Amino acid sequence: MSIFIQNVLLHGKSTNIYVEDNRISYIGEEIRNADICIDGTDKEVFPTLVNGHTHAAMSLFRGYGDDMPLQEWLSQKIWPAEAKLTQNDVYWGTKLACLEMIKSGTTLFNDMYWHFHGTARAIEEMGLRAIVCGVFIDFFNENKAKEQQKESESLYHESKQYSSRIQFGLGPHALYTVSAKSLFWIKEFASEKNLLIHFHLSETLQEIKECQKAHNNMLPVEYLQSLGFLCPLLVACHAVYVEDQELDILQNNQVSLVHNPTSNLKLGGGKIFRYPQIKARNIPFCIGTDGCASNNNLSMLEAMKFAALLQKWANRDTALLSAQEVWGIATEKAHKIFRVDAGKIEMGKLADFMLVDKQHILMTPDHNTISNLVYSAHGGVIDTVVCDGKILMKNGKVDGEEEILAKASEIAKKIAFSGTSL
Amino acid sequence: MSIFIQNVLLHGKSTNIYVEDNRISYIGEEIRNADICIDGTDKEVFPTLVNGHTHAAMSLFRGYGDDMPLQEWLSQKIWPAEAKLTQNDVYWGTKLACLEMIKSGTTLFNDMYWHFHGTARAIEEMGLRAIVCGVFIDFFNENKAKEQQKESESLYHESKQYSSRIQFGLGPHALYTVSAKSLFWIKEFASEKNLLIHFHLSETLQEIKECQKAHNNMLPVEYLQSLGFLCPLLVACHAVYVEDQELDILQNNQVSLVHNPTSNLKLGGGKIFRYPQIKARNIPFCIGTDGCASNNNLSMLEAMKFAALLQKWANRDTALLSAQEVWGIATEKAHKIFRVDAGKIEMGKLADFMLVDKQHILMTPDHNTISNLVYSAHGGVIDTVVCDGKILMKNGKVDGEEEILAKASEIAKKIAFSGTSL
Repeated sequence: MSIFIQNVLLHGKSTNIYVEDNRISYIGEEIRNADICIDGTDKEVFPTLVNGHTHAAMSLFRGYGDDMPLQEWLSQKIWPAEAKLTQNDVYWGTKLACLEMIKSGTTLFNDMYWHFHGTARAIEEMGLRAIVCGVFIDFFNENKAKEQQKESESLYHESKQYSSRIQFGLGPHALYTVSAKSLFWIKEFASEKNLLIHFHLSETLQEIKECQKAHNNMLPVEYLQSLGFLCPLLVACHAVYVEDQELDILQNNQVSLVHNPTSNLKLGGGKIFRYPQIKARNIPFCIGTDGCASNNNLSMLEAMKFAALLQKWANRDTALLSAQEVWGIATEKAHKIFRVDAGKIEMGKLADFMLVDKQHILMTPDHNTISNLVYSAHGGVIDTVVCDGKILMKNGKVDGEEEILAKASEIAKKIAFSGTSL
Repeated sequence: MSIFIQNVLLHGKSTNIYVEDNRISYIGEEIRNADICIDGTDKEVFPTLVNGHTHAAMSLFRGYGDDMPLQEWLSQKIWPAEAKLTQNDVYWGTKLACLEMIKSGTTLFNDMYWHFHGTARAIEEMGLRAIVCGVFIDFFNENKAKEQQKESESLYHESKQYSSRIQFGLGPHALYTVSAKSLFWIKEFASEKNLLIHFHLSETLQEIKECQKAHNNMLPVEYLQSLGFLCPLLVACHAVYVEDQELDILQNNQVSLVHNPTSNLKLGGGKIFRYPQIKARNIPFCIGTDGCASNNNLSMLEAMKFAALLQKWANRDTALLSAQEVWGIATEKAHKIFRVDAGKIEMGKLADFMLVDKQHILMTPDHNTISNLVYSAHGGVIDTVVCDGKILMKNGKVDGEEEILAKASEIAKKIAFSGTSL
């Protein structure tokens, strides 16, 4: 399979791009024959975005029980509904999420959810890349812990049936749901198999207080260090309630972080990601949307805007976290964190990119294209999405979208009915 | 002119809507003949949104000098460029803004800018409603003040040439650009002619400090009260740096406020709109985007999301400022502030409404349609926009959009060139 894109803008200059198999094999003036030819006139090519933290199938819960007190929402709406989800529900929910991500320019995401194969199968079919992490929760029960460890081992082996677009990852949920023993086992298993670990860290004040109470006044990062859990394979999400000394520890252990600005606002945190302190320590981080229940969309364009504006505001500095920087974080730097050789439009890189419509009103005028993408645009500016050398969207259309919307709606209705009847 | 919309959802139930001249004259099961018939299948009708504060023509500056220190950005980029704008530039800049507002469901906005007739003519042609306020700045110079007062009187008379969709308003810029004498004159003129007053209030810390220094330690609202400037015709924008005693004064004087969450974040304020305190006092307020230079789009859908999430976060309460409430503020309550008889889909109301595509992915699933509009949607979910009984957009298309994009781009290029050459 080859794709030739003619007369497309790259860094503001017109060129041609040739894709062979799943990589960009040529950029330049030459005209080449290809299986598929795309006219790039009035379009600019950009690397696709990376969603650093989500629970894809939760797209089924978009708008389900919004604006409720947090604990009520979780205990009366989300948890009862989640308990009834089948693998087939997760499959369609993940397809819905993949469709939305394609339409907003995301082709790689870091997922944590139940029913691993429902998720993996949906992603495989939709053509995206993901780190698929089953949720690991043992609630400090030894039998449950053993069961979960076995399940992780099985899933690791079973995950080999999928293409290289699917990376198996470990998903220990959080400090308050996973035992110390399991965390240690996960770290060991991850190191042995070279797997990424997907974890919720220091998202709420309650979490910090409970940790200090249970563990001799240690802060979460201090406690995790004492367990030997911290390592370069760890991708810790949220990290809003972290003290300077914890950031030092994260830095020393080469942990990566994921900032989820929209979710942090919606779930009422009161604190924001400590970007200046994190940047000063060169701690790698990227941006995520979190699941649709706490956002309520998967738009990385929107998440970048929230991230950049919040930092300017909180630090009273309009020059902080520029559009250019946040763009680099959500593309090149994020791909690096998740070990995918994309995030830049260069010969030899994986063919993961999008064509943006320069004539869209939200891209007009064109004083600064990256500013327009980060601060002005929504998904509607994206015309074409390519991942792993395959066209996932063309002229804003994705194959099979009507069926996905219909199936997901039907399942969501069933969930809402069973949820409220509890 | 009459419009008949068949089989459209209203509050979740299918019905028909008949528009005669510029009002909704019938809602019900009857089938009526009309000049234009619209199939409402799979669409839901909602009142259109109100943008409480913007500088429409500044859409020409979208992305122009972003991420610079505030004063540098203003003095090196915005002010030099603004100084060179012609009435024709403002006309096309405002058309660009109107086009974007139509596409994101806004049909009424409160504007403050230079070249009154450039703005008014563009709005008139685009079919929206607006309160058009010329900027009133005298920089404490008596001659300039007299000149500006004369200009306001002339514009007031000249504005009668426009349709009833254009309300003339007074635009005293701010406390630090308009003399006490002029503010008093404006209040008197507004009261005599029953005109709204559009004003920037307590947006930055610097403004507060300067006011206290110049005026015997009085806070801005206290000082404005001492001048006799506060009245029910005043619509004060931003109001982030306001103390409790100032809110009491605003309440007693029946002043309305406009909250601009995105702009407040981007321009690095450090404080947010004091919604709980403002709500407790029943001070009327609505939401605005501010101009494109400080946002960088005019999407009220996005502004509502920022507003709702910021309050939840700042007050650590996920139930605060619900989607339903913020929706009511941006529709019904905002129309009331600006004295336009719309904001609800009811017989007898002005025919200002939009049809939303229920099949759009960002509206799927449909657990809560208002939640989806506020927290998930972007302008792409809007299919049809009607204002004053005329169709401004159908199937996402607006007449003449290509010409507007081309002309605005051309003018923006000219501005950027002259701006950077200074």
